[in-house]
Amino acid sequence: MVDRKQAVVLLSGGLDSTTAAAMAIDEGFDLIGLSFDYGQRHNIELAAAKRLAISLGIATYHVVPLDFWKTFGGSSLVDNSIPILKNRTPAEMVAEIPSTYVPGRGFIFLSIAVALAESLGIKTIVTGYVDVDAAGYPDSSKPFVAAFRDLLDMGAAKGDRGTPWTIYTPLIDMQKSDVIRTGLSLGIDYSQTVTCYEATQVDGVILACGYCDACLLRKGGFEEVGVPDPALYF
Amino acid sequence: MVDRKQAVVLLSGGLDSTTAAAMAIDEGFDLIGLSFDYGQRHNIELAAAKRLAISLGIATYHVVPLDFWKTFGGSSLVDNSIPILKNRTPAEMVAEIPSTYVPGRGFIFLSIAVALAESLGIKTIVTGYVDVDAAGYPDSSKPFVAAFRDLLDMGAAKGDRGTPWTIYTPLIDMQKSDVIRTGLSLGIDYSQTVTCYEATQVDGVILACGYCDACLLRKGGFEEVGVPDPALYF
Repeated sequence: MVDRKQAVVLLSGGLDSTTAAAMAIDEGFDLIGLSFDYGQRHNIELAAAKRLAISLGIATYHVVPLDFWKTFGGSSLVDNSIPILKNRTPAEMVAEIPSTYVPGRGFIFLSIAVALAESLGIKTIVTGYVDVDAAGYPDSSKPFVAAFRDLLDMGAAKGDRGTPWTIYTPLIDMQKSDVIRTGLSLGIDYSQTVTCYEATQVDGVILACGYCDACLLRKGGFEEVGVPDPALYF
Repeated sequence: MVDRKQAVVLLSGGLDSTTAAAMAIDEGFDLIGLSFDYGQRHNIELAAAKRLAISLGIATYHVVPLDFWKTFGGSSLVDNSIPILKNRTPAEMVAEIPSTYVPGRGFIFLSIAVALAESLGIKTIVTGYVDVDAAGYPDSSKPFVAAFRDLLDMGAAKGDRGTPWTIYTPLIDMQKSDVIRTGLSLGIDYSQTVTCYEATQVDGVILACGYCDACLLRKGGFEEVGVPDPALYF
């Protein structure tokens, strides 16, 4: 019997984190899944994350409720009174921090993953972060992840201090099309992933807007690969 | 009218954070208070934190519930089945990470302070961290705070990117006796602060054990100053 490695994986129910999880499993990791119910508009992504975790064979899966963003505000993703921008060009997407940026989110999600990992004696965290998508979300960029990892060796000190922390980001240098090609080769059913910031579910069917930044990036990726996007756009 | 600066302050109800808050106010800050109801044994500290915030004139005060540590475990501070060590020598206290270390806590508390600060357009966070107390809690040490601050300029990007973040730690280079002297000079009533990991409240009176690491450090500080510790030890 081969020893399998353990890691905590951040799962959003989206295309990237699902692909990263499938890659980590393919590379020999046993994963503990972690999602957050943080008041996001598109909270149907949580049901998707759970279904995807089951389909990937992830046996242990936590959903952590975080209520404070609804009080703090500061993002269109947790405050329905702020509109989600639509039909933006790639240049507009990278020009400034979008309204969908959630204050402190990248720090908090990784930090809670650290709490879970430390409590289990695990020192690897897997995320689906993609550096080219991080222009508007600097708390998921490649340099941020590298610096955060360094901080873990300094501050997250329980257990074996000799083993360095790993934040495993298999998609970090990919384009969206690379992610999709990789996921398809691993058998991921992308009809089950939720990408849209305003995704809704009607009679059990997930519907996406097709025009928010997240939908546009997803659609562009599938076009580049030359495969139909299985998402349903209303 | 002089413009006052704004900052988010982490308040635990203890001696250090109360003193740091009083110092920041004395230096011209308007503070927004932030505490966490995270399943800590000594959760009577939350009532103390609120009373102290009121007495310091802190008008806005948030208590954020975090339920996940009760599930994750990994610390005697959130798992009552793990005993709190008593009567340890100073050498024992710094020899290893204590059972009262809470996985990921330093990362999470600062990160949620960042979320609150960013949502308000504030770029200063105040904490009562003391470097000499951080041997067992590396996520509150001086180098940790410095590296975390650097990470904020990289990853917490909403609003004015030209203004650097500040993590203001006025106690970081102090001994416990310095903290107490400073706080007494600012009029803090230390009978209202909760230090003990097993603090309880009986008929409205806060009682401390006197033998956990936190009590021993506190008692030593008061002894060094030569002032009676107003805490009641059962």
